[in-house]
Formats: sequence, C-alpha cells, structure tokens
Amino acid sequence: MKEQNRKHVKIAVIGGGSSYTPELVEGLIQGYDEMPVSELWLVDIEQGKHKLEIVGNLAKRMVKKSGLPIEVHLTLDRRAAIQGADFVTTQMRVGLLEARKLDEHIPLRHGVIGQETTGPGGMFKALRTIPVILEICRDIEELAPQAWMLNFTNPAGMVTEAVTKYSRVKTVGLCNSPINFKKFLAEAFGTPESRVLPEFVGINHLHWVTSALVDGKEVLPELLRGKKEYSARNVPTLGWDPQFLQSLSAIPTYYLKYYYMTTEMLNEQIASLEKDGTRAEVVSRVEKELFELYADESLEEKPKQLEQRGGAYYSEAAVHLMQSLYTGRNDIQTLNVPNGVIYDFLPADASIEINCVVTAGGPIPLAPRHVPQHIKGLLHAVKTYESLAIDAAVSGDRGLALQAMVHHPLVPSVSTAKLLLDEMLEAHRSYLPNFYV
Amino acid sequence: MKEQNRKHVKIAVIGGGSSYTPELVEGLIQGYDEMPVSELWLVDIEQGKHKLEIVGNLAKRMVKKSGLPIEVHLTLDRRAAIQGADFVTTQMRVGLLEARKLDEHIPLRHGVIGQETTGPGGMFKALRTIPVILEICRDIEELAPQAWMLNFTNPAGMVTEAVTKYSRVKTVGLCNSPINFKKFLAEAFGTPESRVLPEFVGINHLHWVTSALVDGKEVLPELLRGKKEYSARNVPTLGWDPQFLQSLSAIPTYYLKYYYMTTEMLNEQIASLEKDGTRAEVVSRVEKELFELYADESLEEKPKQLEQRGGAYYSEAAVHLMQSLYTGRNDIQTLNVPNGVIYDFLPADASIEINCVVTAGGPIPLAPRHVPQHIKGLLHAVKTYESLAIDAAVSGDRGLALQAMVHHPLVPSVSTAKLLLDEMLEAHRSYLPNFYV
Amino acid sequence: MKEQNRKHVKIAVIGGGSSYTPELVEGLIQGYDEMPVSELWLVDIEQGKHKLEIVGNLAKRMVKKSGLPIEVHLTLDRRAAIQGADFVTTQMRVGLLEARKLDEHIPLRHGVIGQETTGPGGMFKALRTIPVILEICRDIEELAPQAWMLNFTNPAGMVTEAVTKYSRVKTVGLCNSPINFKKFLAEAFGTPESRVLPEFVGINHLHWVTSALVDGKEVLPELLRGKKEYSARNVPTLGWDPQFLQSLSAIPTYYLKYYYMTTEMLNEQIASLEKDGTRAEVVSRVEKELFELYADESLEEKPKQLEQRGGAYYSEAAVHLMQSLYTGRNDIQTLNVPNGVIYDFLPADASIEINCVVTAGGPIPLAPRHVPQHIKGLLHAVKTYESLAIDAAVSGDRGLALQAMVHHPLVPSVSTAKLLLDEMLEAHRSYLPNFYV
Amino acid sequence: MKEQNRKHVKIAVIGGGSSYTPELVEGLIQGYDEMPVSELWLVDIEQGKHKLEIVGNLAKRMVKKSGLPIEVHLTLDRRAAIQGADFVTTQMRVGLLEARKLDEHIPLRHGVIGQETTGPGGMFKALRTIPVILEICRDIEELAPQAWMLNFTNPAGMVTEAVTKYSRVKTVGLCNSPINFKKFLAEAFGTPESRVLPEFVGINHLHWVTSALVDGKEVLPELLRGKKEYSARNVPTLGWDPQFLQSLSAIPTYYLKYYYMTTEMLNEQIASLEKDGTRAEVVSRVEKELFELYADESLEEKPKQLEQRGGAYYSEAAVHLMQSLYTGRNDIQTLNVPNGVIYDFLPADASIEINCVVTAGGPIPLAPRHVPQHIKGLLHAVKTYESLAIDAAVSGDRGLALQAMVHHPLVPSVSTAKLLLDEMLEAHRSYLPNFYV
Repeated sequence: MKEQNRKHVKIAVIGGGSSYTPELVEGLIQGYDEMPVSELWLVDIEQGKHKLEIVGNLAKRMVKKSGLPIEVHLTLDRRAAIQGADFVTTQMRVGLLEARKLDEHIPLRHGVIGQETTGPGGMFKALRTIPVILEICRDIEELAPQAWMLNFTNPAGMVTEAVTKYSRVKTVGLCNSPINFKKFLAEAFGTPESRVLPEFVGINHLHWVTSALVDGKEVLPELLRGKKEYSARNVPTLGWDPQFLQSLSAIPTYYLKYYYMTTEMLNEQIASLEKDGTRAEVVSRVEKELFELYADESLEEKPKQLEQRGGAYYSEAAVHLMQSLYTGRNDIQTLNVPNGVIYDFLPADASIEINCVVTAGGPIPLAPRHVPQHIKGLLHAVKTYESLAIDAAVSGDRGLALQAMVHHPLVPSVSTAKLLLDEMLEAHRSYLPNFYV
Repeated sequence: MKEQNRKHVKIAVIGGGSSYTPELVEGLIQGYDEMPVSELWLVDIEQGKHKLEIVGNLAKRMVKKSGLPIEVHLTLDRRAAIQGADFVTTQMRVGLLEARKLDEHIPLRHGVIGQETTGPGGMFKALRTIPVILEICRDIEELAPQAWMLNFTNPAGMVTEAVTKYSRVKTVGLCNSPINFKKFLAEAFGTPESRVLPEFVGINHLHWVTSALVDGKEVLPELLRGKKEYSARNVPTLGWDPQFLQSLSAIPTYYLKYYYMTTEMLNEQIASLEKDGTRAEVVSRVEKELFELYADESLEEKPKQLEQRGGAYYSEAAVHLMQSLYTGRNDIQTLNVPNGVIYDFLPADASIEINCVVTAGGPIPLAPRHVPQHIKGLLHAVKTYESLAIDAAVSGDRGLALQAMVHHPLVPSVSTAKLLLDEMLEAHRSYLPNFYV
Repeated sequence: MKEQNRKHVKIAVIGGGSSYTPELVEGLIQGYDEMPVSELWLVDIEQGKHKLEIVGNLAKRMVKKSGLPIEVHLTLDRRAAIQGADFVTTQMRVGLLEARKLDEHIPLRHGVIGQETTGPGGMFKALRTIPVILEICRDIEELAPQAWMLNFTNPAGMVTEAVTKYSRVKTVGLCNSPINFKKFLAEAFGTPESRVLPEFVGINHLHWVTSALVDGKEVLPELLRGKKEYSARNVPTLGWDPQFLQSLSAIPTYYLKYYYMTTEMLNEQIASLEKDGTRAEVVSRVEKELFELYADESLEEKPKQLEQRGGAYYSEAAVHLMQSLYTGRNDIQTLNVPNGVIYDFLPADASIEINCVVTAGGPIPLAPRHVPQHIKGLLHAVKTYESLAIDAAVSGDRGLALQAMVHHPLVPSVSTAKLLLDEMLEAHRSYLPNFYV
Repeated sequence: MKEQNRKHVKIAVIGGGSSYTPELVEGLIQGYDEMPVSELWLVDIEQGKHKLEIVGNLAKRMVKKSGLPIEVHLTLDRRAAIQGADFVTTQMRVGLLEARKLDEHIPLRHGVIGQETTGPGGMFKALRTIPVILEICRDIEELAPQAWMLNFTNPAGMVTEAVTKYSRVKTVGLCNSPINFKKFLAEAFGTPESRVLPEFVGINHLHWVTSALVDGKEVLPELLRGKKEYSARNVPTLGWDPQFLQSLSAIPTYYLKYYYMTTEMLNEQIASLEKDGTRAEVVSRVEKELFELYADESLEEKPKQLEQRGGAYYSEAAVHLMQSLYTGRNDIQTLNVPNGVIYDFLPADASIEINCVVTAGGPIPLAPRHVPQHIKGLLHAVKTYESLAIDAAVSGDRGLALQAMVHHPLVPSVSTAKLLLDEMLEAHRSYLPNFYV
C-alpha cells in the first residue's frame, strides 16, 4: 500500500505506568516502518500517577531521540485514551503488589501452592481483575468498538475468556512463555526464529509442547532425550524427570511443575519465603531499582536491566501482534483465543493458548496435529476451575467461588477450600465489590 | 410367550466360590418364573477349590429345597462352564485378599489414599485383573459368542471398559452403589422402588446424583437441605459439608470423599489401619466367619449375616439385569456401559455408569438431563487415568503406567508416582506377566 | 399413591372442534383410572364455532354415558381454557383446508411435490402455524407455566422445534406414524405391542427404522427380505425396491417416498389431482361426512368411520403420553424432542423423532444403537431446511425463507424456489403477518 | 540454510504425458532457487507412451534452455520413478477421454447432470480411479514412504480421501479453483495475491467463499452486491441470482451451479451436447492441437495456448505446495486435507477443501471463522455420497454403490439410480475389476 494511504495508529496503554512500558515504546519505534503510530496514550490510575510520570517522560525522551512523529500522552482519563483507539493494551495489577503478596502468602499457610497465576492466588487475582477489565470493555464498546484489546494482564487466559464471554470487545490474550520457547529453540539449534515452529497444546500457563519443527525437521525426540548441550539460558527440559518426559512425549511448560511436582514446589516456596520473602516482595525491590533508573533524565533508551525483570519479550509479542493485525501478514503467533472447534472436550468460548495465523481479520487458531491422551483430563480440570472462577468473578456468587476452589486440582479438600476462600475473600474485600454488595 | 417355548438359561459364574454366591442363587430361585435357569455352573481356580465346594454345596441344598429343575455344577474347568452359556458373571479377585492388602498398605506408606478401587490401589487391581478377564473373553468369544458377560469384578468400570475395547464380548458392568441409593430413596419417602428415579452422572465409583424423582416429584433440593429425618440406614448426604452440597447441586457418591475430603479420609485410613488393620484384613475375618456358616450342612438358605458383608444387593442387581436382557422388559437400571454420545467430552468407548433402559438387545443409556459444569473436569481427569491404566494393563508398558499414575488426581507428584509404581509393580510381580516378560 | 391424594387433571384442547376430538375423549374416558381428568376444555376460533359445538356436544354425550366426573367446557376464550391447565394439546390448521389446498396445488404447478408437511407445502404450513403457536405459548408461559404442551399440529417436528427455541413452554411433538409401525409389528408377529421395540432414526416424517426387536429377537432382516406374509393392513415395506431396502439396511417411513421416489410420487400426485382433486379436497369430503355423523344426537361414542380418517391412533398416542408424564411410568414412546447429544451432526435444539423413556420429569431420548452412514446427509439437509424455515417464520425474513426453499432437497433450483416463494407468499398473505408488516 | 546443505529433490509425475506437464516444468524451473530439483521422472502407461515422448522431449528442451542441472527421465516403469522420490504427483485419467465421454453422456440420457466430477459421472470417475491410485500408494508405502503425494486427479476430494482412509501415504489434494479465485480478487482490487485472503468453506468442487480480506479489509459485501466493474475475466458472481447471493452471504463455487441451477445447467448441457458434443470431445480436440504444438522441436517453452486449456494454475499450485513443504515457509494455501476437528458434523477423515498453513510437517487447516447455517445440509449430503462411493470403489460392493448413487442430491429417485448404476457399471466394466471379480 502506498505510504500516504496508510492509516496511522492510535494506541492506548492501560497501566501505562508499568515498568514494562519502555520495552513497548522501543518496539513501537523499531517497528514504525511496519506500522506507523501517531498517538501513544499511557493511562494509569491516581495511585500510579508518580510512576506514570517517570515512565512517561522516559517514553517521551525515547520518542524524541527517534525523531518519529509519535505523540506521547500521559493521562488519568481512561476514556480520553480509549476514544478512537486502534489498539488498547492492558497491563495492570488490581491491588498492586500488596494484593499479590497476600495471594502468595495465604495459600502457603494452608499448605497449598501460593502463586500469582496458579492455584488460589491466581483465582483471587482473577476475581479482583475481571470486574475492572469488564469496566474497561464497556468504555471500548462505546468509544472504540473496532479496537483490538491486547490483554497481558494475568491470569491472562482467564481474563481473556472473561472478555470474550462478557463483552463484545475483540480481544487476544498474550503471554511471553511461548515466545521464550521459540527463542530457546532458535538459539539451541542456531537458526533464525522464523525457522522454528513448536506446537503448543493447552491453555495459558498450562501448556505442553508436543512437536517442534526446526528447519523443517521434527526435533522433539531430541529435546526429550535432552542430550544436546543447548547453549540457551532457559532450557525447558531442565528439572524434569527424564523418564516422565519420555513417556509424556511432550515438554510441559514451567508452570506445570506446580501440578507435576507439587511437593517439591511447595517446599521450594516455603524455603524461598523464609529467605527472600514472597516473589511479590522480590519484584517490589526490582521495580524500585528500575524506576530509579527511569527517573534519570539522561536516559533515552530502554535500560538493559529491564530484560532481567522476568517478563522479557512481552512487548515484542505485543508489537508483533499489533503489526500483524494491522498489516494482515498472516504469520504464526501463539495467542490466547477462544477454543472454537479446536478441543472437542472444551467449550467453544473457553480461552486456549495456541498457534494462530494472525490475519487482518484476527487470529485463526491452528488445530494441533496431535493432542496427547495423557493430558486431556488435567487440562479439562483446570479449565473447569477457570470457567467457574470467571463466572464467580462476574456474579459475586460465593457458591460458584467455592466450587471453583474445590475443583482446582491443587486444593486438597473441601475443608481447605472453605478456609482459603473465607480468608482470602476477607483479605481482598476492598477489591471484590461483587462479593460485598 | 408360552412356557414351553421359553428358552431355558445356562449361567456360568466365574469366581463361583465367592461368599456372594448364595445371594445370587437365592435371586435365581426367586426369579425362576421370570427367567427359568436350567444350568448354573460355579467355576473357580485350583486355589479356591475348597471354598467352591463349601459354597457350591450350599447352593445345591438351596436349589434342592426350592424344588426347581436347576442343575448346579461345580468345576475348575472354565471352558466347560462357559460353553454355550447365556450369561457369564465374573466376580473374582486376582491375587486374593493378600494382594488387596498390598493395594491398601503401600500407598498409605507414601501418604496417598490406599483403597481397593480408587487411587493407586485401584490401578493395581486393574493391572492384575484385566489380563485375566481378557483371557476369559477369549473363551467366551469362542465358546459362547452370544453370551452376555455381567462384570462385578472391581474396579468394575475399568474392567468393563477393557472388555469393550479389547474383545468382542457383549458386556455390562455392575455396581451395587446405585441400587443402594434407590433403596434409600424409596425407604426415606415411603414409596416402592419402582416409583423413584435418581439420575446418575459419572462413572463407576465417581458419580453424582443430579436429580431424584420420587412419585413424579423432584426431591433433590429437599435432599440437599438434608432436613428430612430419613429413616434409612445409609443416608448419602451424611458427612458432607452442607454449604458445599448446596452449591454443588448434586449428591456425590461415597467414593468421592476420597477426592473431596482427601485429608480427612487419609487420616481416617491411617487411624483405622492402626486399629483394625486394612479393610482387606477386616474382610478376611468376615469371610472366614461366613464360610464357617456355609459349611453347616443343615443350612439351606442364604444366611442373614451375608447382608452385612458390604456388597449387599449386588446379586439383586445381577438377577434383575439378566431377567431384563432375557425378557426385554425395558426397565431402567443403572449400569456401566460405553459412553457412546452421552458425554461429548469423553471417548465413545469409555465406560460410564448411567441409567439405561434394558432391552432384549442390550442396555440403552439415557442421557442425563443436566450435567453440572462443576464436575466435568474431575470426571474427565479420572477417566483419563482409567483409560491410560487400561492400556497399560494390556500392553505392559511402564511408560503408560507411569502416565496413568501421575495423572491420577490423588497422586501429588511425579516423584511419588514413580516410587509407588516401582514398589507396587515389584510387590505384585507374579500377577503382572505383561510387565515382566 | 392413594386415590384421594391424586391430583385431578385439567386439559385444554386448542383446536377442540377437530374431527379427531372424539377419539381423544374416548381415550381419556378409557384411561380415567390411570389419570383422572376433572376438566376438559375444548377451545376453537370463531370460524370453527359450529364444528366445536357439534364435536363438543358429542364429547359431552360420551362423558355422560361413561358416568365419570369430567367437566366438558366449550369455549372461544383460549386464555380461560389454558388458565391452570396441566396439559395443553394443539391440533389446528391455520388457514383451514383452503390453505392446505394451495400448499398442495401451487408446487405441483411448478413440477414440485405438493404435500401438506413435506416440501414447499410443508414449509408454508410452518410459516403460517408457528406464529400462532408462539402466541399460544405466550399464554401458557403466563397462565400455566408448569403445563406440558402436546403438539400434534403439523409439520409437528418444525412446530415443536419452534416452541423449544422461541418459548419457555415444556413441549413434546407427536405423530401417529411410529405408533402405527408398532401396531403393524405386533400384528405381523402375533405378539402384544408391549413386546415390540422398533428403533427410529431421524426426524418427524423423515425417519428410518433401523432395528426391530420382537419378543427380544431382531427381526429387521426378516422385514427387509419381505418374505413373511404379514397380515397387517399397512405393510411398511410395500412399494419399495427390495434391492434398495437391502442395501439401506433400514425401513424408511412412507414420507421418504417423496425423496427416494420423487418422480413416481410426482406422477401419482398429478394423476390423483386430476381424478380426486388434492388431498385437501378429499379430506374435506371425509370431514363433511364425519360431522354429519357427529351431529346425530343419538351418537354417544366415537364412530368407527373416524378410524379411516388417516390420523388413526393420534389420540391413543396423546393419552399415553399424558398418562406417562402424569404417573412417571417410564415406558418407551416415540416422540419429537430436542436433539441434545443424540445426533452429533445436528444442533442440540433441533427437534428429532426418537424413542424416549417418558419419566415424570419429561421424556428422555434413547440414543439409537446404530445410525446408518447412508442417511446422515439427507437427514442433515432436511433439518437444515427446517431450521431455516422456522427462523424465517419467526422473523418474517424473505432472505431466510428463500434460503430455506432453495436448500430443500425437493426444490430443483434457485429460480424455481424464487417463483414458488413469491407465489406462495402472496397466496397465503393474510396468514403471514410477519412477512407483511 | 546453506546451499551446499540443501537436499536436492526427486519428483515423480504419474501421468507425466499429460498436456499440463509443460506448465509444471516451467514452474519447477522458475522455482529452482526456492527448491532445487535434481531429478524429474515423467512416468506414464503403455497406452500413453507416444504423448509421454512428445511432452517429455519438450520438457528436456525447456530444462536444457534453463541451464539447470535437472535430470529429466521418461519411463513406463512406475516403481523406478517412485523409488526414493520426495514428491509424487498424480494427474491421470483412468479410461482416458473415452470413459469421460460415457460419464457425460449416460446420465444426460436419463435427465441427470452429466459431468466429469459431479453427479453420477464424477462417481464413476472415482470408482475407476481409486483402485489405481491405491495401487500407486502401495508402491509409495514401499519405495518412498516419506514422500508426499500431491493429488490432482479428479474427483480430487474423493481420491484424496480414499488415500487417507486406505493407505499410509502422506497426501494432499489440489484443485485450481481456489487459486483462480485469489487471482480474480487480486486483479479486481489491484493488489498483489499475497494481500488477499478469501475464506473457503466446504469440500472440493463444492465450496463457498464466506469472507474475502483484501489489504486487510472485508470486501465480501461489495462482491455480493456485484457493483464493482471487475476487470478480471472470470467474475465468480456472474450468472448467479443477486437476491439469492445476498441472502446466502457467500459466493458459491462455479460447480455449485449444478446444485443451485440444476434445470438451467441440464438444459445447457443438452444444448451444448448437440452443438459441440460432450466436454470430453471438446477437450479431445484441444489436446490434439496442443500435442501438435509440443511436437515442434523448436519449441523450448510452455506455449501460451496451454493457458486456455481450463486447468490454468494447476501447476503453479503444485509447485507452491512442494516448495512450502520443502522449506516450511508457513504460507496459506487452499488444499484438500482430512477434516479433523474443523467441521463437527463431518467425520474426522473426510477430505475438505480449506485454507491451510503449509508447514514443513504438512498442511494445518485453519478453521473458518464462520460456517453459514444454510449450507451445512447440502455439504453433509454430498460428503455422505462421496464417502459411500469411496467405500464402494474399494470394496466393489454394489449395494454401497447404489446407496451412494441414491443419496447423491442430483439423482432424483431410486429407480433412476438403479438404471444409471447398471448402465454405467456395464459401460465401464473393464475399469472396474473390484465389481467384476
């Protein structure tokens, strides 16, 4: 298409004061030729105003250095940001790191995995987040009905499913875990990322890699044998029992350790809590350091330290996705989208994490060529919990919330579920208006 | 049909030396008008010869007293018993109570539920039993291809599924749990059994009652409230958390306590082990007493004590089923049959426990009017384990066995699964020829 | 249940002036012990007032002769009739026989089958009838929300599906074709009806019998060979090509001749039209004679001549269904109910005609044990047309109506479909308010 | 990948003497950089030896002119050609144009569409072709088990399905119809082919375009309105009733005129037969002229006249597919592949024609975003016929063949089906060994 005919793009970033924002800005600058951004609106809540200013000013310095005609707006007015946007990204944390700390602490006290996106912690993150996301959706339906919402907010699968079920907003959920696997593969086999094609079966934070084509060759058996001296940092087969992997015929995502190695992970969490505090507390310290860097007015680019933050490549994933939706380049990305016909044992509107071709009309999922029998039950069990928790979040129904908690595979009994539910509802009370009307 | 035209029936009872046999004989005598039995073959293995003789002689005395022209044969020759049979029933215990003791003991030592039909114990019972059942099927395919096999052998769902998948024998699996629920309902509401219709969702030893019609009225809400002073002995809502039952909107079978109240059940098992030994040891004592009674040559009827044995109404269920298959009376019975189209999230050949109309052509399942969202994941997870374990039993593949064990919801980690698998394979080695070729 | 506790039943008959009513009244009288009727409301429209009085007075004489305490009400006030009813039956003809004549005439003029329930004629009967039925449903939802609606109104499958999709009324559709088949089987094999169990696959007026158990024996092969000298009047295999039946492995319903023997049926219709006029005209003469009989004040019972009317056993079917819903006797009846999980290639809310167990909670369909591959496409094609036509009836959307007509397997081309649609819409204009707003 | 590491490719062309071969050779030459071909084996049967030599020598001259190191082999030894091949393409006509003439003539005589791939003609082409294709598969299974078979042989959908069901050969079916639609779109909107993405719903020669993205914009409504003055030759909306297209919300393939405009097409066929003879006879004349051109030893390139042959872009499609399988470039192509989970109303192993991402591991189908309700019935009906015909071809079962013929939507009655079947079986007797053992 001729340059002068190209539509210029408006992006609204909900949670724009996040420490991840500089990576996103870098990506948009580097990808300007592919997709010209005319307006970038960083929006945050009153409580996050200070961070928004620090990050937003860094963003402005980065854009200025690039010489590109991108307007950067900092605002607390969400509706102004959304008005007429082409893309709305959401990266937020309802209750901030304080709430996350509770999500990690409370389950551990009852001998249950305490984690941000998995188990009772993930459930409560969903209960807090979904009502806020749906409010944002109401704004998008009104002010930018054609916009795509790119959701990074965890638990990304559940949040995306809630949007699909309870709004008319076009949405895609994103996680950096699949892109990290691709980068590992490319590095391990010394080939460009475009030459690797792993196949993911499952849902967000609960997937299995069941095939991996590298330069047109299936390398899964080689990966499962684990013999190759991979050069990459994050070898996805490390820490797993080799005999188990062999008979599984698939590589589980890291998050599956909470299910397959529950005892070990629980012990590690308890030990780590004693040593460093919860993960929330660790992240809190890292963030503090990052914002000190960002505040330095001589800084005009994304600092290297951001890459160690844990969420590496999130923004790369986001920029790629926006570009493909914008240009219709039909490349393959691993995304969280509605199940449709893919898994016949899951509802059509359940969110799944899967390879998609990203067309200008949206992502189209690619049915995995092989779904191992072994994993169907666990996948269905976790998705059942997720769907119950989503409905509970929207309705504020305690009975549904109890059923969700009871049927989570990591919760050992009804009695524990009841204790956890009561204690966590009370602890997060101020963020759960649906439950306390 | 005119009496003289009626086909007279030959029944072969595999495991005929079982302590349950007198109940079956009583049922056949009482139901003679409905279905005339001409030959009853009680067959057992060399090791069970002594019991077979005691039970068989009691059976002969019972028949003699009845004055009916039923021939009772005692034999160790399975093929002679099966030859031309109309019905073959299987009620056996590969490895006898000694093996059951191991199934109950070993998991408990690793902090896992030790139970005859659920968890690792049930899995090993399946591994031992399925190859023997399939040998019997080979005989039936050859010697009585039109016969129905009525399978009582536990784990009844898995054994029945194995027969469906790996043989051409027509089979139905039977459990006394649904018939007990019907009897409770009838007694509690003071109405005949024919006027109650509970709806069962699930599989053997993992079902939920989701509706209960009594005299044409839905009484589930009343049952869940638990207010009525039921007169029956075994009130199925006792012991459950009332708040949990309310939001579940269903009554779980007793066996679901192993899943929903894992911690409590584990503690109970450990306490009970210390006090009485395993359940296998308790049963062993009860059986000893029964056989002493049976051996009394003046006894000509089923002794009352048998009803306390735990398997009450098994034989009533069996006799009813045979009669309905024989006469085509199209009544409703709760049976273990292939899933077909009933649950769209389970394979067509998975065995399920469900209300069926029993026609002369076999049972036809009745799709439940409502399958609660809540329970789909757990149901799928347990069925996945079952199918893997069945395939492992047939193939002797240790990798499959490991996957089955790992994906059982009651097994907490791959490491525990491996320990259990190794120890239990070794303990049952002599009964697992497929694993030790 | 004790007599004094039994609920006495109110029945509203919409289209009570129908010539079939005496059969229904006879059935209710004969079945009084099973289900005591206290009120029978015959309701009709102004145009049918004369017939209503004739039939109604015969009904009163019949009840009087029986000596039973059944009140018979004749009314034009539909709401009074429905108020608090336990059962509402609908047997009506929107546009009367005049409209039927057009349904039969117009398609024939374009070389297309002209039939009351099949093809374009059936489609227009649905377009006229569905809006009226849904008005009745609005009344039932308000005035008798617990009532069962028994729908006899043709095209019964489509009308029933419309009620399921567009109202909250509990409904079952009824046709006499399956009951006729059972009567044929029983007569041919000299056994009571309760001893025969044919299996029906398909939808109303488009089903195949794929199995027939008589006294517990499969007799389908024998029927397909057609060798037996059946004594019954209506032998269902007559007129079919034997070679075709053999390879079909099923007995098609008579109505399938419109699909499988289109040329022959068309020729027969044209010949018959010349000789006797349309079927509507024949029926018109028969009805005239019947009403002359009914008007005879000395008549106190259903006249024999009614049995030749073509709709024999409709009322038997209706009375049986009401009794089973009332008593919960769990017998098997062949009914039009929502598909649910039965045919995985049809929508869950599509109506199908199928064996059901009739419980007090409603009918539960029995999945056919075998669905022949051969017939799936035709079945899906006709159901697709039906669903489109139902949606067209409700919306008055001409585009949908065109798609329905085009995709009817008996309509040869888009151009014919357009001609037929335009001509028939115009001809029935006064009965199609949704299309002429 | 580095050049020296690239695998060089061996291609076997079954039916190498076809007039299409020069186009294929041109494509392989032009695409050499993408996929280096070392050996091209043109294989034909004794009867086609003369044509093979003419075409083969032209192929050799074309390669020589290109200067590329491609060996061209001409042979009658199919096994030598297949041995170790990477790709086997099949483009053949069992019974040659003589048989096609019968396929077109005989049905017309009975008032039924006479066409090469649709209706009874297509069915008999399948009956003749499938056994020969499966013989070739036996060779591939033995001599080149890793090869991909690219099947162009019509009826391409049925032949591909037969290979999937009855062999272990990896196969893809190809038709030029989708690629022609893409070229039309690109030309009409003045954009490169890579910027258009139509969505195809259906099966080979029976598909509907339900969406068309051009430069990221949905243009289907514009196409259906047909207002634009498209510059392209083959406007796919020409000849259709505009009102019908509007309510269909999709563009049917040309072949659907046989179903939607049966009367018109039949009249056209009869008229055309009188004027030019059958299509087979027309093609015969065109082929004669082409071979005269090919025989000219001064000709070193594909002659322009070939493009008018009707099968334009077949070879482009083939070369693109081979390249994508070779390089794993993950582009989107419209192919005939097994249904898998895509259409839940069709069997998993039914062949469908659908957009696929072509990976190095094979094509992965993209589930259409919208499957119009309207067309499901017709699609299922034709696929049912196809599956029956395939099974008939393999088994030689006349009953199955009759059921296939009867259930083809274009065959009006069982009696016509029987006549057609008998006459066509007899006419093609020498090519139907399975039916005449």
